[in-house]
Amino acid sequence: MIPTQKEVIEAQKRVSPHIHNTPVLRSSSLDKMVDAQIHFKCENFQRMGAFKYRGAVNALLQLSKEQLSRGVITHSSGNFAAALSLAARTLGTKAIIVMPSNVNRVKLQAVEAYGGSIVTCEPTLEAREKTTRAWMESTGATLLHPSNQREVILGNATAALELTKQAEALDVVLAPVGGGGLLAGTALACTYVDHNMEIIGAEPFGADDAYLSLKTGKIQPSVHPRTMADGLRTQLGDQNFPIIQKFVSRIIRVEESEIAAAMRLVWERMKIIIEPSSAVAVAALLREKKEFEKRRIGVILSGGNVDLDDLPF
Amino acid sequence: MIPTQKEVIEAQKRVSPHIHNTPVLRSSSLDKMVDAQIHFKCENFQRMGAFKYRGAVNALLQLSKEQLSRGVITHSSGNFAAALSLAARTLGTKAIIVMPSNVNRVKLQAVEAYGGSIVTCEPTLEAREKTTRAWMESTGATLLHPSNQREVILGNATAALELTKQAEALDVVLAPVGGGGLLAGTALACTYVDHNMEIIGAEPFGADDAYLSLKTGKIQPSVHPRTMADGLRTQLGDQNFPIIQKFVSRIIRVEESEIAAAMRLVWERMKIIIEPSSAVAVAALLREKKEFEKRRIGVILSGGNVDLDDLPF
Repeated sequence: MIPTQKEVIEAQKRVSPHIHNTPVLRSSSLDKMVDAQIHFKCENFQRMGAFKYRGAVNALLQLSKEQLSRGVITHSSGNFAAALSLAARTLGTKAIIVMPSNVNRVKLQAVEAYGGSIVTCEPTLEAREKTTRAWMESTGATLLHPSNQREVILGNATAALELTKQAEALDVVLAPVGGGGLLAGTALACTYVDHNMEIIGAEPFGADDAYLSLKTGKIQPSVHPRTMADGLRTQLGDQNFPIIQKFVSRIIRVEESEIAAAMRLVWERMKIIIEPSSAVAVAALLREKKEFEKRRIGVILSGGNVDLDDLPF
Repeated sequence: MIPTQKEVIEAQKRVSPHIHNTPVLRSSSLDKMVDAQIHFKCENFQRMGAFKYRGAVNALLQLSKEQLSRGVITHSSGNFAAALSLAARTLGTKAIIVMPSNVNRVKLQAVEAYGGSIVTCEPTLEAREKTTRAWMESTGATLLHPSNQREVILGNATAALELTKQAEALDVVLAPVGGGGLLAGTALACTYVDHNMEIIGAEPFGADDAYLSLKTGKIQPSVHPRTMADGLRTQLGDQNFPIIQKFVSRIIRVEESEIAAAMRLVWERMKIIIEPSSAVAVAALLREKKEFEKRRIGVILSGGNVDLDDLPF
C-alpha cells in the first residue's frame, strides 16, 4: 500500500522536465542561532510559488488522453488550486476548482490568472462535496485530491528527493503538515535515501490535528483550526496517514507568535518571501533548537504565496 | 584616471574569497511583461544584504597592516555603514560610522549588530564633516567614502563582472544610481567585457541629480531628495562621474508609485525581498519596456534591506 522507492524515483523522472529544481539556500545567521547546518529547500521558488505544483503535475501526467480531454476537478482554496490550474493549462487540459465563497481575493486571482475555472459554493463540507459531484457528473472531469492522493504524494516527494542530492548526508528533515501530502512525500523520499534520516513534522498549536492523530493512532478531524498558516488548516487522509505513522518521528507544535517571528526572520535575514505555512517549519526548528544542535538539517520551505496587504507583522 | 580592465580583474580576485558570488535569477512573468530575457543579479543575497560589501571589503584589503590597526571611518546612514562594519570585523579591524542623529532604527541596529562603532551628529553636512574630522584626528582611522572612492567603485564592479559570466552576451545592463559607486563600477565591468554593451542608470524623479549631472555635464548636488529609495538620495562624486559620463548611455527616471509597484511585483512574482533602491532599476525597465523588447537584459538588484514596519504598499 505504501508507495515504493521505485515509485518515488519514477515520479522524479516524470515531473523533472516540468518543474524547477529549486535552489537550496543557507543562512549563516540561522545556522548560528541553532548552532547547526541548515539547508533550506526553496519551494517558494517553484512554479506558481509552492511545492504543490509537483503533485499536481505528477497526477496529470498519469491520466489517459481521454481523461485529460475531459479535464480535472479539485476542491481547494489554497495553493493546490493554483497548482492544478497551471499544470492543466501547461498540459493542454482544463481544471475546475471548487472553492468556498469566502475564499481570499489573492488565492482567487491566482487561480484565475493560471486559467482555472472557478466554481464557488457555500463554505461547508456538504456544499463542497455536492458541488464537486455535480460538476464531475456534468463534465466527466477526474477528481484530484490536494493531499490525500497517491500521485500527489509521490509528486510532492520529489522536493525532498532533490534536497537529499543538493545537501548530502542530512540527519533530519522538517516539513510543515496540513493535509499531510507534503510530510508524507518528504518522509518517503528521505527514508528511501537513508533509513536513519529523521523526519519531523511541524504544525501550529491552533491546528494540531496531525499531532493528535499520531498520538491517538487515528486520523483526527481538523475542527475550527485557528492559525495564520492557511495551508495547514486541513486534515490528514487515509493515503498519507499510514506513511506519516510509519516514517515520521514526531510533530513539533508552534505558537502563532512563533510563526510570525520565524516568517519575519527568514524575510529579513534570507531576503526571501515565505508564507506562514513554511514559517511553521522554521519556527519548530527554533523552538526546539537544543534538539537540532550540531546536526545537518533540511527544511522544506513549502511556498511563498503571501497576501502583502495582510502580513502578520 | 579611469580604472583599467586590469584593476577590475584584480578587484575580482581580491574580493572573491570574501563575498558571495550571488545567484542570477530569472522570472518568466517579468520576461513576459517586457518581452525580453531578464537576468537579475541578486545582491540582496550578498553579505549584509547589499552590493556595498564588495566595495567595503575591496577597500579594506588594500590598506596596510598599520592602517588597519588604526581602523577605518565613514559617514553613511545606509548600507555602506553596515558593509564597512561587517568587513572591518571580518578582517579584524574596527569601523567608526558617523551617522546623522535622525537615522532610522533598522539601519542603526544593523550597524550595531555588525560591530560598527556609531558616532551620531546633527543631520547637516557641516556637522558631519566636523565630526568625521575630529574622530579621524583622535584615532588615526582611514576615511573611506561610500561611493566616491576608486577602491569602492572597483569592488562594486565585481557584481556586474560576475553577472556577465553567469548570463552571457547581455545587450544591456541596468543599475540604480545614487552616489554613483554602483553605476560606475557596473559601467566599468560591462564595458571591459563588451564595448557594445549598453549601460543604463535608473533614478527616482524625486532625486534626479545624476540625470541632471549627465545633462549639464557637471555634478549637480542632491538638494532635498524626496524618494522612498533611501539609498539613492546622495550625489555623484569626482571619482565616479567621469566613468558614468564616459560609459553610461542614459539615465531613466521613475515615479515613486512605479518604484513601489516594481518592488511589490518582484516580491510577489520572484519571492525575493528587494529594497526600494533596487526596485528603481526594475521600475525603469518596465517604464521604458518598448526599448528593451527582445533584448538580453541584466539588472543589478542592489540590496534587500527593508524595514518591514515601513513598507510602501
